Amino acid sequence: MMKASPHQVAGHQALDGKLGPLIDAAGHFYKPLQGDERGLKEAAFYTAFSSNKSIPDHIRKFFPIFHGTQLLEASDGSGMHPHLVLQDLVSSRLSPSIMDIKVGSRTWPVQAPEDYIDKCLKKDRESTSLSLGFRISGLQVYGSKESGYWKPDKKMIKRFSAEDVRLVLRKFVSSNASADSGLDPDCSFASIVYGGSDGILAQLLELKAWFEEQTIYHFYSCSVLLIHDKELVLEGRSCGVEVKLIDFAHAVEGNGVIDHNFLGGLCSLIKFLSEVLEAPKCCTIKACPQVEEEP
Amino acid sequence: MMKASPHQVAGHQALDGKLGPLIDAAGHFYKPLQGDERGLKEAAFYTAFSSNKSIPDHIRKFFPIFHGTQLLEASDGSGMHPHLVLQDLVSSRLSPSIMDIKVGSRTWPVQAPEDYIDKCLKKDRESTSLSLGFRISGLQVYGSKESGYWKPDKKMIKRFSAEDVRLVLRKFVSSNASADSGLDPDCSFASIVYGGSDGILAQLLELKAWFEEQTIYHFYSCSVLLIHDKELVLEGRSCGVEVKLIDFAHAVEGNGVIDHNFLGGLCSLIKFLSEVLEAPKCCTIKACPQVEEEP
Repeated sequence: MMKASPHQVAGHQALDGKLGPLIDAAGHFYKPLQGDERGLKEAAFYTAFSSNKSIPDHIRKFFPIFHGTQLLEASDGSGMHPHLVLQDLVSSRLSPSIMDIKVGSRTWPVQAPEDYIDKCLKKDRESTSLSLGFRISGLQVYGSKESGYWKPDKKMIKRFSAEDVRLVLRKFVSSNASADSGLDPDCSFASIVYGGSDGILAQLLELKAWFEEQTIYHFYSCSVLLIHDKELVLEGRSCGVEVKLIDFAHAVEGNGVIDHNFLGGLCSLIKFLSEVLEAPKCCTIKACPQVEEEP
Repeated sequence: MMKASPHQVAGHQALDGKLGPLIDAAGHFYKPLQGDERGLKEAAFYTAFSSNKSIPDHIRKFFPIFHGTQLLEASDGSGMHPHLVLQDLVSSRLSPSIMDIKVGSRTWPVQAPEDYIDKCLKKDRESTSLSLGFRISGLQVYGSKESGYWKPDKKMIKRFSAEDVRLVLRKFVSSNASADSGLDPDCSFASIVYGGSDGILAQLLELKAWFEEQTIYHFYSCSVLLIHDKELVLEGRSCGVEVKLIDFAHAVEGNGVIDHNFLGGLCSLIKFLSEVLEAPKCCTIKACPQVEEEP
C-alpha cells in the first residue's frame, strides 16, 4: 500500500490530488521524476553515484540508498509515472524532528539557462542563501503527544531572516518549541543532538573534510536533512541523530574543482550550530524577532 | 622621491600620466583613494582594522601595515589627492615573483547597487571566479637576469581558463617560466614556495582556520598576494615566501556570519596549490592549452 509521507517538510506533497512522493511499508520512498530534464538528471546522478567506487563508505552513508527507478501510478491520478526508488529516511521513526537546509549561497550551476539563473538568483537574494550561505527550506519539530509538531508554513519559512534562522536552529533542539510557545528555546537537546561524537556537528565536520577534497560533484540546490527523534534522544540513544544529503536534480560534474559553493555554506551552517552548542542559554535571544507561529 | 612601483601586477598603474600608486625609498606604498565612495570605504576599513583588538597577531601579519592617509601630489598631475599610506610589500625585494588572486566566487556584497552587481556578476561569470572560486588578476614571474620577468598582459589574464590557471600556478614556481619558454613548467621551487612549514600553503591554511571562525568582516573583491623571490629561495631562505591580503574597498561587516564566499574560494585555491605540490611532474600538463606569451 502506497501513501503520502507523513513527515515531508519541503517540496511538493502527494496531497489533494497533487503529484508528490509516496512511501510503502517496506521502507521505500518513491519520488516522482520531475517532468522536465531535472528528473532525468537526478536519476542519472543516483545511478552514477551508486556505482562510483571512489566514494568512501563513511561518505556514502550520508546519501539515501538508491533502488533504481520504477513506473508507478502517480499520486495525482494522471496514470503511470517514473519514480526514483529511494530509502525512506524517516517513516520508521516515532516522532522525528526534521530540518531541510538548502546549502550553498548559489543554487544554480554556471552552465544553467539564463532564465533559470535569474529565477534562482532572485530567490537566493530574497532568502538567506546569499547572506548566510544556506537557507531553511522546511522543518518540523516534535513537541509532545499533546502538542504534536511545530511545522511553520512555507510562506513563513521563505521570509526567515538571519535572526529567525538563529532562533529556529535553537528551537530545533528545544523541549519547549511547540506551536504556541512564546518561551525562549531551552536548547535542552543541543548537547546530544548537535554535540557529541555521533551528533550532527561531528557528522557535518566529516562531510566538510570530504568537500575539501572531492572534485567529482558540485551539488547545487542540494539539501542537508537533519533528523533527530525526541523519544530516542530522551532514552539516551544517539542513533536518533542523522544527517543526510538529498535533492540532486542540479548536481553537476566537478571537473577537478572542489564544490567551494557548497563547502562555504556548509562551513557557515557548522558555525551557526557551534554557536548554539557553545551558548545554549544565549542571553541575546531576546533581541531576536519573534518567529510567528502557523495559524 | 616618489615613483611608480616597479612591481605592480594588477590595478591602475602610475604610468603615462595616469593616476596610480607611488612608492618612496622608506618602504611606503601610497595608494590614491578611488574617486567614488570606494576610496573612503577602503580608508575606513584600514582605520577600523588597525585598531581592532580582536584580530590575532598571527592574522594581522597577513595585512599590510597601515600608516594613515596623506594628501599628496597625484601621479597624473591633477594636483593634491588623498592617498592611503601602506607598507610597501615588494620594492625591497631583488627579483620578486608575484601573483594577485582575487578570492571568492562572488565579488559583490549583497547590499551593493543593482548596476554594480550586474557588472560584477558578468565579470565573475566570464572569468574563473564563478567556476573556481577565484581568479588571477595579475602576475609576474622572475626568470633570470637575462630573460627578466614573464608578465602576461591584462587581456590575456582576463581570458584565463581553468586549465590556464593550473598551468600558471605551476609556472609561478618553475625555473623555466620565462616569456619565450614553451617547456613544461619544471615546478622546481614548488616544495619550498608552496610547501614547507613557512610556505604559501601553510600560510593559507592559517588564514583558512581564521575564516572558519571570524564573523567580523566579509571581504568581497579582495586579493591574496603570493610573493616569492627566486634569489632568496635559491639561497634556501624561506623568508622569501609571503602571503598578504590586499584591496578592501568592498570589505563589509560580517554581522555574525562567516565569510563563506571568501572561505570557499580560499579552500579551492588551497586545493589547486596542493595538487601542484603533490604532482610537480604532472603528466597531464600536455593536455593543458598553451598560455600565449605577451608579445
